[in-house]
Amino acid sequence: MSCNEKGAEQNPRPVFSRSDMEISKAKEVFKAGLKLSEAYRHASVVMNYDSMTAAPKNAAAYFGADMALLSGEARKVKLDKDFIEAVETLCAHAGELDGITRREAEEEMRGLERIRAIPAEEHAAYRRLLGVSFAKWQEAKRRDDFALFEPYLDEVISACRRMAQLAAPETDPYDYWLNENEEGASTQMLDGFFALLKRELVPLIAAVSECEKPDASFLHAYFPKAEQQKFSLELMDLMGIDRDRCSLGEAEHPYTTFISRSDVRMTTHYYERYAAANMFSVIHEGGHALYELNVGEELKGSPLAHGASAGMHESQSRFYENIIGRSREFAELVLPLMKKHFPEQFSGVDAEGFYRAVNRVEPSLKRTEADELTYCLHIMIRYELEKRLLHGELKAADVPAEWNRLYKEYLGLDVPNDREGCLQDMHWGSGLTGYFPTYALGNAYGAQIAAALEKRVNVWELVRRGGLPEITAVLTEGIYRFGKLKTPAQLIEGFCGEGFEPRYYIEYLKEKYGAL
Amino acid sequence: MSCNEKGAEQNPRPVFSRSDMEISKAKEVFKAGLKLSEAYRHASVVMNYDSMTAAPKNAAAYFGADMALLSGEARKVKLDKDFIEAVETLCAHAGELDGITRREAEEEMRGLERIRAIPAEEHAAYRRLLGVSFAKWQEAKRRDDFALFEPYLDEVISACRRMAQLAAPETDPYDYWLNENEEGASTQMLDGFFALLKRELVPLIAAVSECEKPDASFLHAYFPKAEQQKFSLELMDLMGIDRDRCSLGEAEHPYTTFISRSDVRMTTHYYERYAAANMFSVIHEGGHALYELNVGEELKGSPLAHGASAGMHESQSRFYENIIGRSREFAELVLPLMKKHFPEQFSGVDAEGFYRAVNRVEPSLKRTEADELTYCLHIMIRYELEKRLLHGELKAADVPAEWNRLYKEYLGLDVPNDREGCLQDMHWGSGLTGYFPTYALGNAYGAQIAAALEKRVNVWELVRRGGLPEITAVLTEGIYRFGKLKTPAQLIEGFCGEGFEPRYYIEYLKEKYGAL
Repeated sequence: MSCNEKGAEQNPRPVFSRSDMEISKAKEVFKAGLKLSEAYRHASVVMNYDSMTAAPKNAAAYFGADMALLSGEARKVKLDKDFIEAVETLCAHAGELDGITRREAEEEMRGLERIRAIPAEEHAAYRRLLGVSFAKWQEAKRRDDFALFEPYLDEVISACRRMAQLAAPETDPYDYWLNENEEGASTQMLDGFFALLKRELVPLIAAVSECEKPDASFLHAYFPKAEQQKFSLELMDLMGIDRDRCSLGEAEHPYTTFISRSDVRMTTHYYERYAAANMFSVIHEGGHALYELNVGEELKGSPLAHGASAGMHESQSRFYENIIGRSREFAELVLPLMKKHFPEQFSGVDAEGFYRAVNRVEPSLKRTEADELTYCLHIMIRYELEKRLLHGELKAADVPAEWNRLYKEYLGLDVPNDREGCLQDMHWGSGLTGYFPTYALGNAYGAQIAAALEKRVNVWELVRRGGLPEITAVLTEGIYRFGKLKTPAQLIEGFCGEGFEPRYYIEYLKEKYGAL
Repeated sequence: MSCNEKGAEQNPRPVFSRSDMEISKAKEVFKAGLKLSEAYRHASVVMNYDSMTAAPKNAAAYFGADMALLSGEARKVKLDKDFIEAVETLCAHAGELDGITRREAEEEMRGLERIRAIPAEEHAAYRRLLGVSFAKWQEAKRRDDFALFEPYLDEVISACRRMAQLAAPETDPYDYWLNENEEGASTQMLDGFFALLKRELVPLIAAVSECEKPDASFLHAYFPKAEQQKFSLELMDLMGIDRDRCSLGEAEHPYTTFISRSDVRMTTHYYERYAAANMFSVIHEGGHALYELNVGEELKGSPLAHGASAGMHESQSRFYENIIGRSREFAELVLPLMKKHFPEQFSGVDAEGFYRAVNRVEPSLKRTEADELTYCLHIMIRYELEKRLLHGELKAADVPAEWNRLYKEYLGLDVPNDREGCLQDMHWGSGLTGYFPTYALGNAYGAQIAAALEKRVNVWELVRRGGLPEITAVLTEGIYRFGKLKTPAQLIEGFCGEGFEPRYYIEYLKEKYGAL
């Protein structure tokens, strides 16, 4: 039972025996618990960020054990009996709460129900299993030996299935995990989405693959790191990212970390022989950053003060990276900045040439290096496989052959080995079952949001004249400021005036790549 | 009563009522508490480091509150009744413990006695006072208006006196704070030390000040930051600092932070118009780093796995910075490295010229910018003033005039304003009463250790041929590996074969600067 449903009841029955706390007291205990829990989150996020950016190589020796101890302490905050009583009290009186507290209590209740459904020993065994399976995946990938990982993948999938059945016995286990990763996602929704993608994109990709490739050689000149760093900061300014609240660090695999709307950390990676890598990292991570930097001030300190979901976050990073960042208008806007920092490297390059170069399509084996057009097919392959694994229709032993078959069918590629094939991603070894689809949903949400945005402002005129902050302002008003106060479905409905519609994404890709 | 004394008793009386825990159980509870407490320390150190190096400017808004919450949680670990019972049990059986556990328990008992002596409200009021007084100091310094800080300085001094009387009623309050900051330090010890310094150094400085100054203009050429960064890493290698366990970051005011022997973070600051600043920061912080990196492996994870005291730490940073780093032999060693990175800037400079330039003496107003010869006189002035403040012989209102009088007397300088005078340091506003003398003790320990070292190895031959790791190995064997397992006095006695002797320091300075 969610808090929401309970609050809506006319005559709530006394379901929870200990709900004799006063509401004001409950609110106080609840808010104090959330505050402390956020402080632990703050520490853990900073320690993780530090470990990826600043820590010396051997720091890991102590890092893991200390993080585990602190995360144990953080868990205790949520399992404290006064805190639980406060959550129950608030949920029994949901109708009397302000919107923020109500949503916070609802989220905590979901977490509590999950904790209660899964016995502590089961959960601990699962954490241990993930520790081992992740290490086995690393080893298997390093040695290109799937057999090392195979039994652990089967075990992880079984454990995920069992936990889904405990937590939601009446739900399909894969649906359970999809919804855990993206509120509202289901196989029904995704089957439709991917069927459409398959029907429309596979032939388009095959057609594009046969066309002549545009020249992108100028992107592979020499771009000194120090100059790329200066360019990156000016690119952040161009995007309207407040650098007093958002820093740019370096990491092997760029990502963005969120502490609060006053403290966001983007990272990038500089390749001196490929200018586009850093540029699109900054724009992609900048999309994540803009979302977090523009969450409403009134959510300050609340666990709701972050982007609504993984999919919604990805929608914004992909929107800025691809829909904006790989547009003709953005090429016109950014090329002079590129030329300011790299005049020789870009001499003779015009906006149209730049636009074509950064939109070069080439089916490839690696998801993380895929272009905009082929990216979602990589996700579709993973979706099909993990759905069948969860449903027991596939064993881990079948994964390599099925992986290779699907890469051939959808992308026309022969997979030479498992390291570059089914061992490339860390997700399955880490128990992130059902996470991949959020990447594809992000792309589709982003295209739908872009279509709605075009009805409100002249997006392309704004991009051409550097008015990105005006675009962000519209997204802030309609999406960002709500943080996690609304679900992804509510945000899409609110901004677009209709439910999730993958056709915008297909239309966008067909129009863009048809023309190219 | 310290654990040590108790363990030495033949027939220990049952002083602690609840010591009915078994020793093995007590040890388990105790070690688990220490481990958790170290994990909190790890988080707080990383968060502090991050806030100084990587965090965006506005991150502070959330940082302080979250740090305070977590430090409250960390305190609870030490106040947990099982943990206290374990400490008491172990102290009642000190004779049966291994050396590490015994010293750990002794340290915890000291902490517990402090907590018990000072009522919680008193302690909380003191923390609040320090929060305000620090802010007032900042404001007073910014506005150059001592009157803003004056009443708070009086309050901080009164509070320090009161707490000293509660914690150690039979001890002189300034002696209490000296010993809190450096185990074994006292007014008796420091009065003798500073009297000697005053007698010997004041005339020496006056004489040196009248000599012609060596040319140091070449240190103020243009030194691009990127090249200084490369130089710094090679300088770390030259010092034998393992960069897999120690990183070099950037901070406004360079410092070193210690997480474990696998994770040390040095910082430096690059001035493009002054090459010596970064070079000596790296060497100074490198001394701190070498101490921490060489603490014994068997202390891993223990709160004892760090340098013995503030003074001992400073002795090593100053040893490397001044005794080694500002020696003729080091000038010969490092100049080729400087010339490799800055050939034009150092063209025509020889080792002797470099040596003279980095040893230029010039009495100045600011402690943090003082040269080796005048540094301790800055500390002596602060020592005299804080001793009289604690003894009630001076009011805050008298500080500016007394400060200025002493700067004239000892350094021959007129202090133009309080911002560059008695408001320059953050210590008094932060309640760091009795901390300054550790800096001077560090210098004196360092010279005494250097003298003992010269009896064991040919220090100058080693420096000349780049054998710094061999010097570190001797210091590791005699000092570093013990961490906090021994007191500063035990370490000095053990390494030098006699107790603390400030005359080595005076002799060193007289010999060096007499010749220059």
